[in-house]
Amino acid sequence: MGWAERVASVLLGCAPAGLSRVVPMMCGSCANENAFKAAFMAKAASRRGGAPPSPEDLSSCMRNAAPGSPPYTVLSFEGAFHGRMLGCLSTTHSKSIHKVDIPAFDWPTAPFPRLRYPLGQHAAWNAAEEARCLAAVEAALARGGGNVAALIVEPIQAEGGDFSASPAFFRSLQAACKRHHAYFIVDEVQTGCAASGEFWAHSAWGLPTPPDAVTFSKKMQLAGFFCGPELVAKEAYRIFNTWMGDPVRMLQLEAVLADVRDFDLAQNAAHTGAVLQTGLLELGAKHGGAISAVRGAGTLVAFDAPSAAERDALVASLRQAGVDIPVCGERTIRCRPGLFFTERHARQFLGILDGVLGEAGEA
Amino acid sequence: MGWAERVASVLLGCAPAGLSRVVPMMCGSCANENAFKAAFMAKAASRRGGAPPSPEDLSSCMRNAAPGSPPYTVLSFEGAFHGRMLGCLSTTHSKSIHKVDIPAFDWPTAPFPRLRYPLGQHAAWNAAEEARCLAAVEAALARGGGNVAALIVEPIQAEGGDFSASPAFFRSLQAACKRHHAYFIVDEVQTGCAASGEFWAHSAWGLPTPPDAVTFSKKMQLAGFFCGPELVAKEAYRIFNTWMGDPVRMLQLEAVLADVRDFDLAQNAAHTGAVLQTGLLELGAKHGGAISAVRGAGTLVAFDAPSAAERDALVASLRQAGVDIPVCGERTIRCRPGLFFTERHARQFLGILDGVLGEAGEA
Repeated sequence: MGWAERVASVLLGCAPAGLSRVVPMMCGSCANENAFKAAFMAKAASRRGGAPPSPEDLSSCMRNAAPGSPPYTVLSFEGAFHGRMLGCLSTTHSKSIHKVDIPAFDWPTAPFPRLRYPLGQHAAWNAAEEARCLAAVEAALARGGGNVAALIVEPIQAEGGDFSASPAFFRSLQAACKRHHAYFIVDEVQTGCAASGEFWAHSAWGLPTPPDAVTFSKKMQLAGFFCGPELVAKEAYRIFNTWMGDPVRMLQLEAVLADVRDFDLAQNAAHTGAVLQTGLLELGAKHGGAISAVRGAGTLVAFDAPSAAERDALVASLRQAGVDIPVCGERTIRCRPGLFFTERHARQFLGILDGVLGEAGEA
Repeated sequence: MGWAERVASVLLGCAPAGLSRVVPMMCGSCANENAFKAAFMAKAASRRGGAPPSPEDLSSCMRNAAPGSPPYTVLSFEGAFHGRMLGCLSTTHSKSIHKVDIPAFDWPTAPFPRLRYPLGQHAAWNAAEEARCLAAVEAALARGGGNVAALIVEPIQAEGGDFSASPAFFRSLQAACKRHHAYFIVDEVQTGCAASGEFWAHSAWGLPTPPDAVTFSKKMQLAGFFCGPELVAKEAYRIFNTWMGDPVRMLQLEAVLADVRDFDLAQNAAHTGAVLQTGLLELGAKHGGAISAVRGAGTLVAFDAPSAAERDALVASLRQAGVDIPVCGERTIRCRPGLFFTERHARQFLGILDGVLGEAGEA
């Protein structure tokens, strides 16, 4: 197989269903920002009825001025994290220390659902919460007056506190985007590559058509975005840079993908995640609510402590007991194990957590 | 040597004189944009007298609003190329097709000198041209009302047409930046790593103090920026991402640097570039002005054809004769050989060019 065929085979071999094109990059920020650029270009081309940029477009953009530099925006969610370059940082709203003192595009936001868990006990409240957020999305798209080129969303708002929403919510988001001619971009930088129990987390949503773009990085070793033909610029080199990805990282991805397939690691994540969630729910009951709001997909599992202080104390105790585990949001602990984390490891972790919670209860 | 020591030894071992810190990244766009971020943060900290961001700063930035998202700008030059992410694309002004349809920050520009060659025959005109551009820079900095956080400049405007300026011009730029409290960022993504005849092209300028930041990528294998302590944020993780450079690429850089040292490749570039320029001047005289405006530093040499059409015909003929050579600007051909391009290769190229120009003259 020649190199070009190998690139196509590796990268398109793991493409989300229905997306036939890939634009490789080197990091998640570049992946998201180039997906934005693709959306901006497609929107502009569509507005021109497919015609190329006018002489006025071409001259004004050289001065960073309209109409060549259009007032297009990307709609994002409060609590989202999409990277730290100046474009994608304008769609990041997880921690102020990431954003403060940096100029930003005046782009709109909408609230992301803050569901209550267990889901089954809060069905009505959660439905109302998702409806509230969808109404805000709809309003932001309408207020944009056709200038909202894209909406970007994470399957799980990771940095923001491991919040997610129902498959129906994501289907409604896509429908709202279609109504307002905004491209629907799914940021799978953190969720992609099997950890959610599916290779791509958005596969669980039952979307009637594929997202317009799906961005990736992290576990995928290299980065970039998948899309359909609509988001590929007609003119050459409009999305381009010196590297356009990294062959070494692609060879690493090839090896990762072989293991994901040979060891059925998506299924492993689904099974191990179920063991984790069941065990965490049991520990929550056993230790009188010391942990709650158990949630997640695959091994992307999270749970809450009663307060930030109790969360931090718990994390410190876990570290003393040999478990280094990350936090996010206000009082959340999140599991982010590697793809080879199995039921055996999950049970080991649950046992250690049980012991630490027991000691905390006695103290 | 441990890994941390090796990283410090490789990256700081090639640092520009006077710059003691390095922030590694993976591409030139990320290098430039993170240098901008460092400048924005330092400017904001300086405005606050060193105090941390206020509660209002921290809350407003989450809505992409002032004062937390300040109206700071980066001043750049017409014809400049600093990358294609949304921040650095607002400082890129070389080709409209790179910019059109993409939202931009409303950041200022100034003209970059368009010197006439040979320099010795146009001294008065060139001095006036540089003075005109410096006055425009001074005016843009003054108009910025303290919001111009940085000025970014390439030693040679490469994409824009291989234009450069005198060492005195760059010294004056730095002085203007100091007067207006704007950081002076030198983009050495294309010029860095020995090709200019110095390891860093700005070393030839005789600056009284180092630039505030020097960005790098391309030949350096990995990317990032060098700076002094002033541009390092006091708070951790304000400039951060998943990768922060690439260890594989750093090992490649280590090997490149060993060859640059062992084979004295900066000196080779200086010598070979002189052979190239002398030969090109002779060919210009021999072939009645078919090539002109011979210019450059080290092997970063360029020359002009009488028109775009004649330039393109010359490039096509050279390709037929076995020389693949890039173009830039309106009617410019630029040499961008590898670091192992020696006098022997230069003479071979000059011989082929002589033949092609002779045939064109007979046609």
